[in-house]
Amino acid sequence: MKEFELINRYFKGRGIIRRDVELGIGDDCALVSVPTGHQLAVTTDTLVSGVHFFEDIPPRALGHRVIAVNLSDLAAMGAEPTWISLGLTLPTADMEWLEAFTEGMHEIAEYYNVQVIGGDTTQGPLTITVCAKGIVPNGKALKRSSARVGDWIYVTGSLGDAGLAIEARKQELMLDPLHYKAALDKFHYPAPRVAAGQVLRGLATSAIDISDGLLADLQHILKASLVGAKIHVDKVPMSNALRASLDEAARLRLALSFGDDYELLFTVNDNNKNAVETRLKQYGVEPVCIGQITAHNGEVQLVNKGQPYQLSGQGFEHFS
Amino acid sequence: MKEFELINRYFKGRGIIRRDVELGIGDDCALVSVPTGHQLAVTTDTLVSGVHFFEDIPPRALGHRVIAVNLSDLAAMGAEPTWISLGLTLPTADMEWLEAFTEGMHEIAEYYNVQVIGGDTTQGPLTITVCAKGIVPNGKALKRSSARVGDWIYVTGSLGDAGLAIEARKQELMLDPLHYKAALDKFHYPAPRVAAGQVLRGLATSAIDISDGLLADLQHILKASLVGAKIHVDKVPMSNALRASLDEAARLRLALSFGDDYELLFTVNDNNKNAVETRLKQYGVEPVCIGQITAHNGEVQLVNKGQPYQLSGQGFEHFS
Repeated sequence: MKEFELINRYFKGRGIIRRDVELGIGDDCALVSVPTGHQLAVTTDTLVSGVHFFEDIPPRALGHRVIAVNLSDLAAMGAEPTWISLGLTLPTADMEWLEAFTEGMHEIAEYYNVQVIGGDTTQGPLTITVCAKGIVPNGKALKRSSARVGDWIYVTGSLGDAGLAIEARKQELMLDPLHYKAALDKFHYPAPRVAAGQVLRGLATSAIDISDGLLADLQHILKASLVGAKIHVDKVPMSNALRASLDEAARLRLALSFGDDYELLFTVNDNNKNAVETRLKQYGVEPVCIGQITAHNGEVQLVNKGQPYQLSGQGFEHFS
Repeated sequence: MKEFELINRYFKGRGIIRRDVELGIGDDCALVSVPTGHQLAVTTDTLVSGVHFFEDIPPRALGHRVIAVNLSDLAAMGAEPTWISLGLTLPTADMEWLEAFTEGMHEIAEYYNVQVIGGDTTQGPLTITVCAKGIVPNGKALKRSSARVGDWIYVTGSLGDAGLAIEARKQELMLDPLHYKAALDKFHYPAPRVAAGQVLRGLATSAIDISDGLLADLQHILKASLVGAKIHVDKVPMSNALRASLDEAARLRLALSFGDDYELLFTVNDNNKNAVETRLKQYGVEPVCIGQITAHNGEVQLVNKGQPYQLSGQGFEHFS
């Protein structure tokens, strides 16, 4: 199949049409309008076969995931996702694979009201780069650099499930099949916290999405904000699958260090603590307070049931 | 080298800083402002090693080229390039290679006043996806769909040099070393017609950049505009290197079918013909009129010195 046929078949005329898109797929560029009083938020994530996903990942899951990880970055800025550009490099034009991949992609794009406005399809080793765009009212974006001493530290949901799925898949763990399925679904179909991110605008003092692991991503906030943090590891939310599958030390390693779950980590000052909890619950999100920002620049103090805690082992190497 | 070190060393704090960028590299998203009264133009191009360039391409040329091919799409819309996102997948973090690659990239970005606002660096087979953004006054973008019968067809410069370089490199041609160097330089360091594209706003009736070959890209205009074209192949501009290296039939094949030269192809109505020529010459561009739009929907009539002309052979398969 030639590139033009492929684009016509799987991309052009599929998915939603936004009113702010004057030209989508089919010219040298897409043409879109950013509403007055808004900034444009832009993020890019690449997924490489064998590095970011197993080569036999269901193509529908891959289509979902590559959009989800990008929307998660927009969520972490408090942006409303709007447009997506796709760089899709494929070894062969396998129609069954493409049908499922684009179905997964269009499904999540439609759910979040995002239009695929263009891209490039090329032949080569399976690699997908998405550039997602969103809009955010001027000056309202959630940054990493504005956490302050005394702010409360929250996460939007349970951590460690993607890690559980990947470790199990690598046959380092034997899981109950239902737990394995639950964890794998979370890895394959992460739900970016798009609504939560927008709710947090004007309430949170900083935010980031947890892609590299809770502690690694927390460090980005600490470095950008010149602060430290105290984390109560016993408060970190975990799924039943994770709790049932691993002992405490092992599950904490996954929940604190693995990443790939795409929950948000955010900080909020004491005045807005209740408002954040109430507002997020209205959107079906149960935020969990796991600690507090401290003045110890760059330092993270882990506490387990009141006692200092040391994380065992190194972080995981995801697909090594 | 870890991803963060790599980003800090080769990207963060390098290149120009634009005043419309509130956040560049270093948060979940970049934050930029589109000026009032302007639309955002977005384009994406992927270059894959062994498919779009030879594996031993000088890294500085690759850095230049991957930006140039994207800016060329913005030029073809009449957009002013502003911001770039980079998805860079590398087999290894070779510092010498990265230094030269990013130098090539930052050089051309600076020249065109474009800021690299973010991206993702991953490990895998060498693949580069750039998403370039630009701005264009509302309603002024140059589209493919608005060529009209009687419009004159122009190109902004000589065609076929990239094809000459690639064919020679594949040792299908023996060239004079100076001609080979000239052609290879044109392939490695294409100059996107950014200024020309902006000059053409309000003057040209349609435009496209010649990436897939003059005839293939002309077809895109014809299909989108529901018109035909008559092309005087003897008017198609060619470099001295191409003229000196090949006989007429062979050079016409390259000039008409090869692509990768990144000149603009545009149409202009009779009223604006002189104005276009005068204005482009003020910007150092010598546009060449090569034909005229006809009513024969989708049909291209080739003429050589007044006689019907048939292109010999098929189009080239670039890196096959």
